[in-house]
Amino acid sequence: MRATMMYAAGDVRVESVPDAAIIDPTDAIVRVTRACICGSDLWPYRSMERSASGQSMGHEAMGVVESVGSAVGKVKVGDFVIMPFAYSDGRCEFCHEGLQTACVHGGFFGNAGFNGAQAEALRVPHADGTLYTLPTSPDEALMASLLSLSDVMGTGHHAARVAKVGPGKSAVILGDGAVGLCGVIAARRLGAEQIILLGRHADRIALGREFGATDVVKERGDEAVERVLALTAGHGAHSVLECVGTGQSMTDAVALARPGGAIGRVGVPHYDGIPALPSFYKNVIVGGGPAPVRAYIDELLPDVLEGRIQPGRVFDRVIDLESVPDGYRAMDRRESIKVMIDF
Amino acid sequence: MRATMMYAAGDVRVESVPDAAIIDPTDAIVRVTRACICGSDLWPYRSMERSASGQSMGHEAMGVVESVGSAVGKVKVGDFVIMPFAYSDGRCEFCHEGLQTACVHGGFFGNAGFNGAQAEALRVPHADGTLYTLPTSPDEALMASLLSLSDVMGTGHHAARVAKVGPGKSAVILGDGAVGLCGVIAARRLGAEQIILLGRHADRIALGREFGATDVVKERGDEAVERVLALTAGHGAHSVLECVGTGQSMTDAVALARPGGAIGRVGVPHYDGIPALPSFYKNVIVGGGPAPVRAYIDELLPDVLEGRIQPGRVFDRVIDLESVPDGYRAMDRRESIKVMIDF
Repeated sequence: MRATMMYAAGDVRVESVPDAAIIDPTDAIVRVTRACICGSDLWPYRSMERSASGQSMGHEAMGVVESVGSAVGKVKVGDFVIMPFAYSDGRCEFCHEGLQTACVHGGFFGNAGFNGAQAEALRVPHADGTLYTLPTSPDEALMASLLSLSDVMGTGHHAARVAKVGPGKSAVILGDGAVGLCGVIAARRLGAEQIILLGRHADRIALGREFGATDVVKERGDEAVERVLALTAGHGAHSVLECVGTGQSMTDAVALARPGGAIGRVGVPHYDGIPALPSFYKNVIVGGGPAPVRAYIDELLPDVLEGRIQPGRVFDRVIDLESVPDGYRAMDRRESIKVMIDF
Repeated sequence: MRATMMYAAGDVRVESVPDAAIIDPTDAIVRVTRACICGSDLWPYRSMERSASGQSMGHEAMGVVESVGSAVGKVKVGDFVIMPFAYSDGRCEFCHEGLQTACVHGGFFGNAGFNGAQAEALRVPHADGTLYTLPTSPDEALMASLLSLSDVMGTGHHAARVAKVGPGKSAVILGDGAVGLCGVIAARRLGAEQIILLGRHADRIALGREFGATDVVKERGDEAVERVLALTAGHGAHSVLECVGTGQSMTDAVALARPGGAIGRVGVPHYDGIPALPSFYKNVIVGGGPAPVRAYIDELLPDVLEGRIQPGRVFDRVIDLESVPDGYRAMDRRESIKVMIDF
């Protein structure tokens, strides 16, 4: 089968690899119908050291179940499924608590014998726990938004939940990438009254406004902080969604949080420490991490199916599998917000 | 009047200073009947650079209202009051939210013309917002525990609240000082099933066990982490109360938190950053700061008045005002957990 491999920064290739096959009785094989490129894939795309064996890429997919292992009970051949970016057994205490990204038997695709999702097919471990079977065969127009439930929409939602977005509150979103834009959707969906998007790209800002951003701040660093404080009666925002992952963004997040406020961070941290003193003196809560998107599908799916939210609009480019290297380039150059792979 | 001044590390003096007097119409003068020395006073006691003007010390007190300004309405002359360590107007949005330590007109005693509480009397700004009038003249046996509501018990409670202690949960308390011991009381009061106290001093550990600690870990650093993980099925604790304020303690706190758990930190941070990566990958929430003890008195007072909690037991030495320098020495040498000043 064909699959995406990365060998070094900037070196992404679509290659022939051994077909995905069932190994454990709890596995399923999913024939991928849609996958995508994640903002987090850009970190290795910009910094990966050369590797002879390469790294299998991709962790967001939807598709059709092609075969199942002998111990798979819930998931059936032919099911149309969403595949969250982390696999999880659905049985451990963390899964029961809705934190599937801490599953004791869980992990991430592209490692430990599981190929990535930018591929024709996938071996999915703990299929009953991992895969979310859709109740009906979905309308073509909904595919992009359904695919977003495998990561980006659930991740934006996680940032908003951890940041305690609620009715009447103010929210700041740091980052106008696909996750930040889904954070805007999540903040609006959870009732935020004021939604301030920090971003500088015209296309992203325009989409952010359509998603519900009430204010856009194009400045960065100290100037951005000043502008947000001016927009929030001098206090900062109740909720801050940190969707970037740089030290500057985290420092800004703390500065932008209102005393007693909360920060939900979902940008993979490329910094060592969360500023300890300013967050302490303001009694700001800092949380977040890999989003348990598996848990969030139940909550978000009805809004997608009934068209109340359209997170699939973050996909502004659709390519085929062989064009994946071009897709990385486009996202790296910010020519695209998020690239979908249609098989 | 007599008051405590610090001029440099190790140089604490009780001196004659001008009498506390009403300046603003919202002020009250409180004649102090009990005050104490705080663990946070030991930071400058160990590190303060010499200052010619000195620093007025103390921020925990109870006493009797001696006079009130013309705009004071609720507080009356003769009221017996608890004075929280931070003053607050009781009217701003943060006070209404119960975060009086972020009051827009608030601040801390010992600064900006307000003398500290290790003194015969105090000028208290925003008296109606700051002071908590006790409903009846309390029994002598309750005085120590009532005094603890001005800071140490409310601070331990804050750590427990932020760390989301609840019925059936596991809690780890870092620090066997007075705040940590009050954290044990708070964790038990909020229903924690397992309460693990990290500490190494026999007297403190003994008191911690009486307060409700189910386990004591005397190791430090990596060994302590190993022990706590062994006590918590390998996962760490749901709730971690960080009551020290060093970088090592914060690093340990993150290591000891269970995935999806929460850390309540109340030790004044003497470190720059909260470890960003391990807290992220475990989806651990980190919160805390100066405790809004004013808000917590309503909740804690009935338990003190009816003897269900006895946080006053952290005071293991009682001195008079002139002996305050000895009190600092005793706490610095860990000869005393916490020193009360009886006037």
